[in-house]
Amino acid sequence: MSLPRLLDGLLVLDFTRVLAGPFCTMILADLGARVVKVEPPGGDEARHYGPMVSERSTYFASVNRGKESICLNLKDPRAQALALRLAERADVLVENFRPGTLERLGVGYERVVACNPRIVYASVSGFGQTGPYRDRGAYDVIIQAMGGLMGITGPETGEPTRVGTSVGDIIPALYTTVAILAALRQRDTTGQGVRLDIGMMDAVVAITENAMARYWASRTSPRPIGNRHPAITPFSTYPSADGYVVVAAGNNTLWQRLCQTIGRPDLADDRRFATNDLRTVHVDDLTRELSATLSTRTTDEWIEVLLAVGVPCGRVNMMADLATDPHLHARNMIVELEQPGLGPFLTPGTPIKAPGFDDILTRPSPEFAQHTSSVLREVLGLDEADIAGLRAARVVE
Amino acid sequence: MSLPRLLDGLLVLDFTRVLAGPFCTMILADLGARVVKVEPPGGDEARHYGPMVSERSTYFASVNRGKESICLNLKDPRAQALALRLAERADVLVENFRPGTLERLGVGYERVVACNPRIVYASVSGFGQTGPYRDRGAYDVIIQAMGGLMGITGPETGEPTRVGTSVGDIIPALYTTVAILAALRQRDTTGQGVRLDIGMMDAVVAITENAMARYWASRTSPRPIGNRHPAITPFSTYPSADGYVVVAAGNNTLWQRLCQTIGRPDLADDRRFATNDLRTVHVDDLTRELSATLSTRTTDEWIEVLLAVGVPCGRVNMMADLATDPHLHARNMIVELEQPGLGPFLTPGTPIKAPGFDDILTRPSPEFAQHTSSVLREVLGLDEADIAGLRAARVVE
Repeated sequence: MSLPRLLDGLLVLDFTRVLAGPFCTMILADLGARVVKVEPPGGDEARHYGPMVSERSTYFASVNRGKESICLNLKDPRAQALALRLAERADVLVENFRPGTLERLGVGYERVVACNPRIVYASVSGFGQTGPYRDRGAYDVIIQAMGGLMGITGPETGEPTRVGTSVGDIIPALYTTVAILAALRQRDTTGQGVRLDIGMMDAVVAITENAMARYWASRTSPRPIGNRHPAITPFSTYPSADGYVVVAAGNNTLWQRLCQTIGRPDLADDRRFATNDLRTVHVDDLTRELSATLSTRTTDEWIEVLLAVGVPCGRVNMMADLATDPHLHARNMIVELEQPGLGPFLTPGTPIKAPGFDDILTRPSPEFAQHTSSVLREVLGLDEADIAGLRAARVVE
Repeated sequence: MSLPRLLDGLLVLDFTRVLAGPFCTMILADLGARVVKVEPPGGDEARHYGPMVSERSTYFASVNRGKESICLNLKDPRAQALALRLAERADVLVENFRPGTLERLGVGYERVVACNPRIVYASVSGFGQTGPYRDRGAYDVIIQAMGGLMGITGPETGEPTRVGTSVGDIIPALYTTVAILAALRQRDTTGQGVRLDIGMMDAVVAITENAMARYWASRTSPRPIGNRHPAITPFSTYPSADGYVVVAAGNNTLWQRLCQTIGRPDLADDRRFATNDLRTVHVDDLTRELSATLSTRTTDEWIEVLLAVGVPCGRVNMMADLATDPHLHARNMIVELEQPGLGPFLTPGTPIKAPGFDDILTRPSPEFAQHTSSVLREVLGLDEADIAGLRAARVVE
């Protein structure tokens, strides 16, 4: 018998596409929820995003594992009726269309809640369901820029820089997941469902953290400052003989230990660097000195000697490094899914670890419409003749 | 009567410090949970992180709103006993010490679960409670580097770049919040508490998204590519006359419309740019052409004309722009908390919007040990004489 998962027994009806919605429902699936992804004829547009391998999108495969795919042609009222019957049985509905789209497809909030007053109906969109920007189109790069993240990321020259993963979608996906689980708690107590409205720009603004506090304190907008910390020094990447080494020596004890260990006791005695605040003031001098020394040995050599004396440090890992990292393997964080058409497909595992609950992912992303028959049979009790009729009438695929 | 919040009635015992833990418990507090933050004598070390205003840390104020602060001197067994009595009444305990530290302070998992088998006990640490890196120190910059994020972020020259907000703490905080709420659902069903183990490196690896898929497909680690998208063009920042404009024209219709609107029908007809794939191959030429034209007018001018024809676009907002953005104000995303000692303190609101549930934040961050008496009285039923005795014995502050 397999181990339980935290969300066993939860049924999620998934009208999501591309990234912000699918990342949320992937987390729910990883935690054991049954996620039924409803795709239009032609499928989630992300099924066409590269790189393609054996005519399958590796992009799609990376954010849809563990879900079941059905195809409903929601332009047909009979498909809308099927969607509402599924919603009647679901605990959660998630969608990330522009505001108003799902209403036009007959699965808007009012119609769904009339069928199932206990449902948690979660919408994630670029700017949310209200406010002046509500109807604007949004993509990750726009959200990272408008949400304030790009303006504080990048080299000291001040060039705003996009985070290399689509955090403009992923941060809202995480907040939507939090919102859904909090709303389910409320629903279980009161019996009343909840409508959720997550705006991607809102979510990115929410993680700007101390940048807003620094703006408030100085009335000056923080600008990009490269890889260093605004108030802790040394705390950055430095060149090594074969790449980079990251050093975070956040207090005087660690600073002294760092200087001794790298053979630079002169820096430990240097008055410019006597306190963290002075080190931050003289960060350019300090960076020059540390770089001159750290660039003489390899990253691995430095990490070995610094870890031995307890100075926090690390390496800049590329994807190839992650794929072979012994710690990540020990934590079930590097997974090979048997993905139809792709074979063993490499993907990150779930970071939610709870002893006694399964964290080993085995279910791949679904082929398009792979589960139409099984879901209509198991969830709605249709028989094969019903399903064949719906298929012939192009209500489902 | 005030509106309810999604997590009303939940009691969280909070042993967190600095950022990863406090960001999680701030989300729980925003959603209505009662969060009792247990600080050591001297307080959470983040109370000393700058910028300081009126001797208060704005850093601390930005991630501890809505919590209550009590001080327990956990080196004293009598304080440990009080902590266990609080844990007996709590739904959730959250901590982000290095593995083993809370055990040494008498509030480890085994002792807590013996008092309260229904508790959700959540630990977030640099590398988790298991695996070869378990005992290493971790800070945001190390986690961003080791988790693979820095190696895919930055200018095309390939220089790895730190994200300007501490996502190495914030992403794990969001996953921890998801884990806690999923575990509460499990606990409410089975009556059994859950132990949670979140590693910050794991969490960052989990959001590398299609970078791992691209590595798998090509066996080559993706490198930083500046602000553009690896597969969609144009989809980046471009210089305007007074800053930057972000344009995301992800399909041929939008591309044609963009060219017409900016007065460059020649680009629409250029065979190098005929399809998205060709535009991605010829991205350098395309960027040069678009930049030449977009740099002739201001950001606001371009946004007005592009929005009018439905081409997704936006601006690079700095903190000062967020503070006055009309959409964020309409969404209750810009909050002024009455913060003791600081006055009206600017901070982002909660992005979790649920009509019928309150999303207006009013509770500031606590002063150090502000709630020791009230919590011991209300939660444990101690009287003023008991509390005075504990204070005199330096068990509490």
